[in-house]
Amino acid sequence: MSEALRTDLYQLTMMQAYWRSRHNPEATFDYFVRKIPAGSYLLTAGLDYVLDYIENLRFEDDDIQYLRTQDFNEEFLGFLRDFRFTGDILAMPEGSIAFPLEPIIRVTAPIMEAQLVETFILNKMNFSTLIATKAARVVYAARGRAIAEFGLRRAQGDAHLEATRATYIGGCASTSNVLAGKVFGIPVSGTMAHSFVTSFEHEIDAFRAYADTFPSKCFLLIDTYNTIEGAKKAAVVGKELEKRGEKLQGVRLDSGDLSELSKQVRMILDDAGLAYVKIVASGDLNEWKIDELMKKGAKIDMFGVGTELVTGRPTPALDGIYKLSDVLERGRHAPKMKLSEEIVKATLPGKKLVWRTIQEERFIKDIIALDDEKIDNAVPLLEQVVKKGKPVHDSPSLAQIRQTAAANLSKLSDEYKKLDGAPVYSVEFSPGLVALRERLVEKIRREEIGSKI
Amino acid sequence: MSEALRTDLYQLTMMQAYWRSRHNPEATFDYFVRKIPAGSYLLTAGLDYVLDYIENLRFEDDDIQYLRTQDFNEEFLGFLRDFRFTGDILAMPEGSIAFPLEPIIRVTAPIMEAQLVETFILNKMNFSTLIATKAARVVYAARGRAIAEFGLRRAQGDAHLEATRATYIGGCASTSNVLAGKVFGIPVSGTMAHSFVTSFEHEIDAFRAYADTFPSKCFLLIDTYNTIEGAKKAAVVGKELEKRGEKLQGVRLDSGDLSELSKQVRMILDDAGLAYVKIVASGDLNEWKIDELMKKGAKIDMFGVGTELVTGRPTPALDGIYKLSDVLERGRHAPKMKLSEEIVKATLPGKKLVWRTIQEERFIKDIIALDDEKIDNAVPLLEQVVKKGKPVHDSPSLAQIRQTAAANLSKLSDEYKKLDGAPVYSVEFSPGLVALRERLVEKIRREEIGSKI
Repeated sequence: MSEALRTDLYQLTMMQAYWRSRHNPEATFDYFVRKIPAGSYLLTAGLDYVLDYIENLRFEDDDIQYLRTQDFNEEFLGFLRDFRFTGDILAMPEGSIAFPLEPIIRVTAPIMEAQLVETFILNKMNFSTLIATKAARVVYAARGRAIAEFGLRRAQGDAHLEATRATYIGGCASTSNVLAGKVFGIPVSGTMAHSFVTSFEHEIDAFRAYADTFPSKCFLLIDTYNTIEGAKKAAVVGKELEKRGEKLQGVRLDSGDLSELSKQVRMILDDAGLAYVKIVASGDLNEWKIDELMKKGAKIDMFGVGTELVTGRPTPALDGIYKLSDVLERGRHAPKMKLSEEIVKATLPGKKLVWRTIQEERFIKDIIALDDEKIDNAVPLLEQVVKKGKPVHDSPSLAQIRQTAAANLSKLSDEYKKLDGAPVYSVEFSPGLVALRERLVEKIRREEIGSKI
Repeated sequence: MSEALRTDLYQLTMMQAYWRSRHNPEATFDYFVRKIPAGSYLLTAGLDYVLDYIENLRFEDDDIQYLRTQDFNEEFLGFLRDFRFTGDILAMPEGSIAFPLEPIIRVTAPIMEAQLVETFILNKMNFSTLIATKAARVVYAARGRAIAEFGLRRAQGDAHLEATRATYIGGCASTSNVLAGKVFGIPVSGTMAHSFVTSFEHEIDAFRAYADTFPSKCFLLIDTYNTIEGAKKAAVVGKELEKRGEKLQGVRLDSGDLSELSKQVRMILDDAGLAYVKIVASGDLNEWKIDELMKKGAKIDMFGVGTELVTGRPTPALDGIYKLSDVLERGRHAPKMKLSEEIVKATLPGKKLVWRTIQEERFIKDIIALDDEKIDNAVPLLEQVVKKGKPVHDSPSLAQIRQTAAANLSKLSDEYKKLDGAPVYSVEFSPGLVALRERLVEKIRREEIGSKI
């Protein structure tokens, strides 16, 4: 199925209006985020989907046929039939650290093209970046304990593959999602559910059946009836495995006071000589609950996290937007911005780049500057990924993206990673940008509002 | 791509353990919801995806090949190669009203089959039901004003199609999502973005270009620079359209105090003789904000709702679960339940049905009963949809499902639709179910926990 119609109807109606008005100047749009749901930074993800889309963007016959039923102009439909994206795209690579207002993707193309791709870019970047960022927070809270993602059952339907990919970029160690394992090569993990236990006449029958089947990688779920009694039975099975020269790998707690229960279970296992058996905890966990468990000294070696990781709960959407910043008309750049009664909804005009000052492997501050400004002692964050419609970017593997993310996160000081109350990272506007914005606000007030605000 | 691997790894490890233990009794699982995110009821959706999945469930060669890399037993993989779902499924039709603890889907099959399909059922039903329910709330709050869904850009990636389908079931009038229009035949709507306005030298140039292109279906976005000034320019263009024998359809407000601005804009339009021009409002709306706007007497004729509708914000996941309730072993039914320290996590044992008492076209109360109990003066809510692995259900069209939903919602008293503080609808347990549960709790305490709790 072609992805060309994965867009808002208004992109197509605007395109027809541009087309009819012969108004198709080169335009530049920025994808950026105004407000970060939680914490101080974003871990970017989703670019790979965008590049794939851009390269393959075509209107197929059945797309055109559908649009015909929606009363589009027949000549305009002919234009769509030959449509290709021909513009340039700059972007932060996946796994970058970004901050509010910074262009993460910058698209320059005839406005009909740049407009059409807005919806897809927002749909993919908003979600993958939301989840990668959430995952980085959860991983940080676990202080080195592995995070196993198992959100498939609560993921928003078909979003599950992208969600799992993003959690892996953010540092999760594995997923329960077998399809994601197959498609992306992400390590898969998982053992048993409560139904497995209850389906047998007795809990210990279920434990033995599982241990017999997977003697070398057996994790037992011990809270089906009562966690402490379950731990005792797991210890029995653990000793039985030892007699066969195998080792019980772990037990999982999925309900109750995880801190308290983990300590009691640890004692039961240790007393049975099973100090090597790991304790996995799960049950509606998130970064705050994991942080709390770690502070309480819970004896947990690994966390399973589902719903929160794959949906971004409590904030299931990133408010990333895609805004026109420049139009090239008759050879002259006309910088553009949106004013708003709500100042936070105003946008930054002009073709821009983002620069970062890095000292001793630490991110110090960023500067948003106009295209023609050179910022000293800073590195540019946007790379050219599409030139004249063709990808010019070596797509890194998912493992490489994950490493890039880890490397970038290691350069972000811990203070910015605090779950709550992290300071605002310094993002400055260059002198050129500040001057341009002031000039443009004046012009809009004069010409469009009659100086009324 | 086959959907067989859209499952949690533990379903497959459990299957192998069942297989190796020759433990494959007929089992019954219930899909139900413990807690409703907001309000008193659920509007069910997603069944169509489940039935399609069940009918086509196969492990393809590349699925088997992937599982081979995960150390599954070769004989077990041979079993998977011939795997088919052979069981029975009862379900509430899409567009049903359901309440906590009521089985919405009941699966009876050899446990290896019934276990495997858990994840897909949860993934699809949880999300579609969440969104259909959210949409019903938003539609209710708007008191007959149409709701246009335009959440594609904030939808969780690929979840957008299911999300839009569910919003339509819940009563939304249209979507911005062109692909959903093509795939599902949902009406599409949309006109222009701020970038369209700013791309022209002056706001009124943009309005005229759009009106020229779509003279008979022109909606103008008027808040790019200043809503009041934008309304005046829209009025000018509205009068220009009148001279051509056309009518301006509407204006859209997307920021600011929507109640206050809508009243001022209404006056500007009315004073210009444009009383027929509709006012559309959007901007991070949800059921509570729409309710508030209606109470304030906002002059709004239609609402556009995005993020909240398609993500279910603030609750992006339904906690629907799939629990074993019965195992048929050696010709005898062994009812099953999960106990828990957290009483809310315990489950209802036995093969069950749900009955509803309806009087004068009003839902009065529901009764969850055992399979062999007959409930007087009530109608059963679960219908057989799969028999011995084959769908036996005429799939209704999306339009029919939407009508079913509307008909069911009309039978639910308004008190249950209150956005906050709705009373709890009465769901009773039959005498047989109560007795069974008591008996089983006793047995588990005696046999698994040594009466410790």
